[in-house]
Amino acid sequence: MSSVLDGGVIDEKEFNSAIARGFAVLECFDQTHTEMTLSQVAARTGLSPATARRCLYTLRVLGYVRQDGRKFTLGARVLTLSSSYMRSSQIDEFLLPEVRNLVEAFGDAASVAILDEGKALYLAHTTRQSAVRPTAAVGVRYPAHATSLGKVLLANADSVTLNRYVGQAPFTALTDRTLTGKKELLACLQEVKRLGYAIAVDELDYGIASIACPICDAEGRVVAAINSSGFSGRLTRDVLVEERLPRLIQASRNITAKLSQYPVLVRTALTPQSAQRVGPI
Amino acid sequence: MSSVLDGGVIDEKEFNSAIARGFAVLECFDQTHTEMTLSQVAARTGLSPATARRCLYTLRVLGYVRQDGRKFTLGARVLTLSSSYMRSSQIDEFLLPEVRNLVEAFGDAASVAILDEGKALYLAHTTRQSAVRPTAAVGVRYPAHATSLGKVLLANADSVTLNRYVGQAPFTALTDRTLTGKKELLACLQEVKRLGYAIAVDELDYGIASIACPICDAEGRVVAAINSSGFSGRLTRDVLVEERLPRLIQASRNITAKLSQYPVLVRTALTPQSAQRVGPI
Repeated sequence: MSSVLDGGVIDEKEFNSAIARGFAVLECFDQTHTEMTLSQVAARTGLSPATARRCLYTLRVLGYVRQDGRKFTLGARVLTLSSSYMRSSQIDEFLLPEVRNLVEAFGDAASVAILDEGKALYLAHTTRQSAVRPTAAVGVRYPAHATSLGKVLLANADSVTLNRYVGQAPFTALTDRTLTGKKELLACLQEVKRLGYAIAVDELDYGIASIACPICDAEGRVVAAINSSGFSGRLTRDVLVEERLPRLIQASRNITAKLSQYPVLVRTALTPQSAQRVGPI
Repeated sequence: MSSVLDGGVIDEKEFNSAIARGFAVLECFDQTHTEMTLSQVAARTGLSPATARRCLYTLRVLGYVRQDGRKFTLGARVLTLSSSYMRSSQIDEFLLPEVRNLVEAFGDAASVAILDEGKALYLAHTTRQSAVRPTAAVGVRYPAHATSLGKVLLANADSVTLNRYVGQAPFTALTDRTLTGKKELLACLQEVKRLGYAIAVDELDYGIASIACPICDAEGRVVAAINSSGFSGRLTRDVLVEERLPRLIQASRNITAKLSQYPVLVRTALTPQSAQRVGPI
């Protein structure tokens, strides 16, 4: 038997659903669900209380979950996985200097993201802001259509990925500026592809304005996006394009030049989602 | 049937070994094993090739592992787990300001760590260094006996945790200064407890000198340690104590004051390992 996930067919003889349930329990903790009881975990994952209990027990023994009375939280051990990833992918060495240069040049914040299950997943982020919410951070994922990074990534995604994404429309409005309709998003993405950059003003949250452009690998494929963001009260579209775009494009080119020297970063971190479709090992 | 792990007895009816195997595969990737073939993963985890293959397949479907030809690597998705943890534990808000203040005061680097399976696990880290190796980073774990943070944590650990640790002696020498014997380590830890701080000079690696002191919760229990580190060529023991210790103690007290206001941080991030022994849920 097989089922379909993320554009690929899953071989259920090879897929271990116990592992998947373990990760479902781990993933159900997030910034708005930081401490949960067993029954809350069961409700959020859709697992039976008995199954959720065995998952929590196992994750606790492994050190990934902690327990205080009836409440469970993530344990610090999860940090070791991300540090292994950050060190092996060399993201800090290759991306962070360019992101820091943008923040030195313009203040505010700058990030690099890839597309991960229809969300912009932040691989590098530096900020001088403290007031603007929601704050990006490494490992945070935001809906792609509401961010400049996400729009660049969607505009350059393959048709399967793009169609799957826009098929979810209408999208939830995060502000009254969020693009919620399929037609308006597709028109926007077409424009992004034509211009070579994307802008989002007050779309993810009120007060946030950003401009993003693609990062290509040595073969010219878009593998990530880089942005510069700040307070929308000071940053009109014109200001973003005139003041920040040239520097942003230069940062993107610098990263591409590094990628051509160190292809391992593309393989490990920046491989487009479409190239990772599920197939036999 | 039951077995013993980490000082507690595991209930094997509740423990799901498939989940454990999935994490064993994920954990076998680290900075020196960034890309591996199936047979390399099987060899490193001790799993059969068929079991390792199903684990890798499942982790790939879940987005935690990527595949490029015959090589597997960690995927960026692991970052989402750490960002959930960092946000829910509020580590950046509570610990990072104090760590940054130390780096502003002394340059070099500063960190906060907890004891995690006999290793000093770094929860917060800031540096102005670039040349010194090995570099600490959030999520990195170093052998406790070779670092000032680890010595503080061991010196203040409960007797079960301490005995389990020193029972592993003789330890591998990371430099010719590393304490490798049980007797010399116990004598050192006794002195650390008496003085209220620990020093490590050229013990983790040549060139690294650091001084650490404990961080207590509102009840006075040691829950973490904070350090300041730099180049051993400039930093003798006397310099570390005279110049850095007073400020380090102040940083520790500031964190304790915050912890008494926000006990959730202690529950989620800083609970001593001994309080997390495996027992029934």
